[in-house]
Amino acid sequence: MPADATTTVQQLKEIMRAFVAERDWQQFHSPKNLSMSLAIEAAELMEHFQWIDVPASRQVKDEPAKLAAIGEELADVLCYALALSNELGLDLSETIRAKMVKNATKYPAAEFRGRYGKDDLPT
Amino acid sequence: MPADATTTVQQLKEIMRAFVAERDWQQFHSPKNLSMSLAIEAAELMEHFQWIDVPASRQVKDEPAKLAAIGEELADVLCYALALSNELGLDLSETIRAKMVKNATKYPAAEFRGRYGKDDLPT
Amino acid sequence: MPADATTTVQQLKEIMRAFVAERDWQQFHSPKNLSMSLAIEAAELMEHFQWIDVPASRQVKDEPAKLAAIGEELADVLCYALALSNELGLDLSETIRAKMVKNATKYPAAEFRGRYGKDDLPT
Amino acid sequence: MPADATTTVQQLKEIMRAFVAERDWQQFHSPKNLSMSLAIEAAELMEHFQWIDVPASRQVKDEPAKLAAIGEELADVLCYALALSNELGLDLSETIRAKMVKNATKYPAAEFRGRYGKDDLPT
Repeated sequence: MPADATTTVQQLKEIMRAFVAERDWQQFHSPKNLSMSLAIEAAELMEHFQWIDVPASRQVKDEPAKLAAIGEELADVLCYALALSNELGLDLSETIRAKMVKNATKYPAAEFRGRYGKDDLPT
Repeated sequence: MPADATTTVQQLKEIMRAFVAERDWQQFHSPKNLSMSLAIEAAELMEHFQWIDVPASRQVKDEPAKLAAIGEELADVLCYALALSNELGLDLSETIRAKMVKNATKYPAAEFRGRYGKDDLPT
Repeated sequence: MPADATTTVQQLKEIMRAFVAERDWQQFHSPKNLSMSLAIEAAELMEHFQWIDVPASRQVKDEPAKLAAIGEELADVLCYALALSNELGLDLSETIRAKMVKNATKYPAAEFRGRYGKDDLPT
Repeated sequence: MPADATTTVQQLKEIMRAFVAERDWQQFHSPKNLSMSLAIEAAELMEHFQWIDVPASRQVKDEPAKLAAIGEELADVLCYALALSNELGLDLSETIRAKMVKNATKYPAAEFRGRYGKDDLPT
């Protein structure tokens, strides 16, 4: 069973909170700084896909070394997202569910099946 | 009790997976494209902190309208992270825990208390 | 003749400097803030290429409306780069030339023809 | 006299064009890929300002080693902007001037002196 099946978001937030507290790093973890960190890590994740084309990027899941490296960058992104939610007191699960409800209204499944936004409408 | 206390990562992944499947959007969700989406949403999150200084960014948690807007952008970042983990078959909880163990070795608490990296060493 | 053939970098820096001075915006234009602005505009540029594949992105140069929109985003990126160089007192032409000399040493043409870095070596 | 005073944008575009052609790298330089590269380099630039506060970021111009490192990252951003303009056939000087005219209309100096957008209006 994957760890994701039994791990709550709160447990991950606690791992991050403890790590930061043990190093007295809250002083650096202002929301402004953390938003930069998150964007920086997102860019490092992107580096793995910079020079390959779209179909090739679907193959990385079968290359264990690359997949592990990509997983580490994605973890970095998520750690900063957790740290930011800790600083801001955000309930991520609630926030994500509310946003997905909004997205479902914005993009009704029947209308947007197989395409994104107006620009992708067949003409 | 916050939803984060009872929501597993798997449950959030499933919300995203269902949303994408209902719209037949897997065709757009290549890892290359999703890495771009994640970086784009990280930039939109950053916009909220672009012109304010570091101390002011710590005050946004007391401004409900701003906090809600920031929460939505953070949700967008996380939704793409969930979508990417779905595409790549990554166990995020496992990946985050492994990375945090690595980080704890790289930044021993005793040595890095109150400072980041070599450059922050008092001289 | 394109304007690029007769426009110096200094002239573009002056346009930006005057614009900022007339609005008394130097107070916002700290290098930290400007580095965020530059990354935000780079993400907005990327949005135009988010959902299309690599070959399709080569076709946008033949679509005047898209090309104009992309040009505006690239202009935004460059305006912040000019603003940052104004704040830091950087000579961009000198800096670019020096970096390209370094790049030429790092990537000798004979060795890197048709490929990037070690990972792209044919095996 | 700074090199910026005598260097045209076209000259910088030519440096980049020759570098790419000598390595046969046009095949990698699709607009989609270059938009990612530009965002990645913008993030690397941002790294220098990630953990310092806004006033401290104004001091880096007096620290030659840091300034040189920042200049290199800014050069990387600009080189990809030049490469992208080469691929798309964009006249950067024209594009920047047109955008600045638009900006001047959007942000009249009298109205926006000392503040950004509506949110910054004194209340």
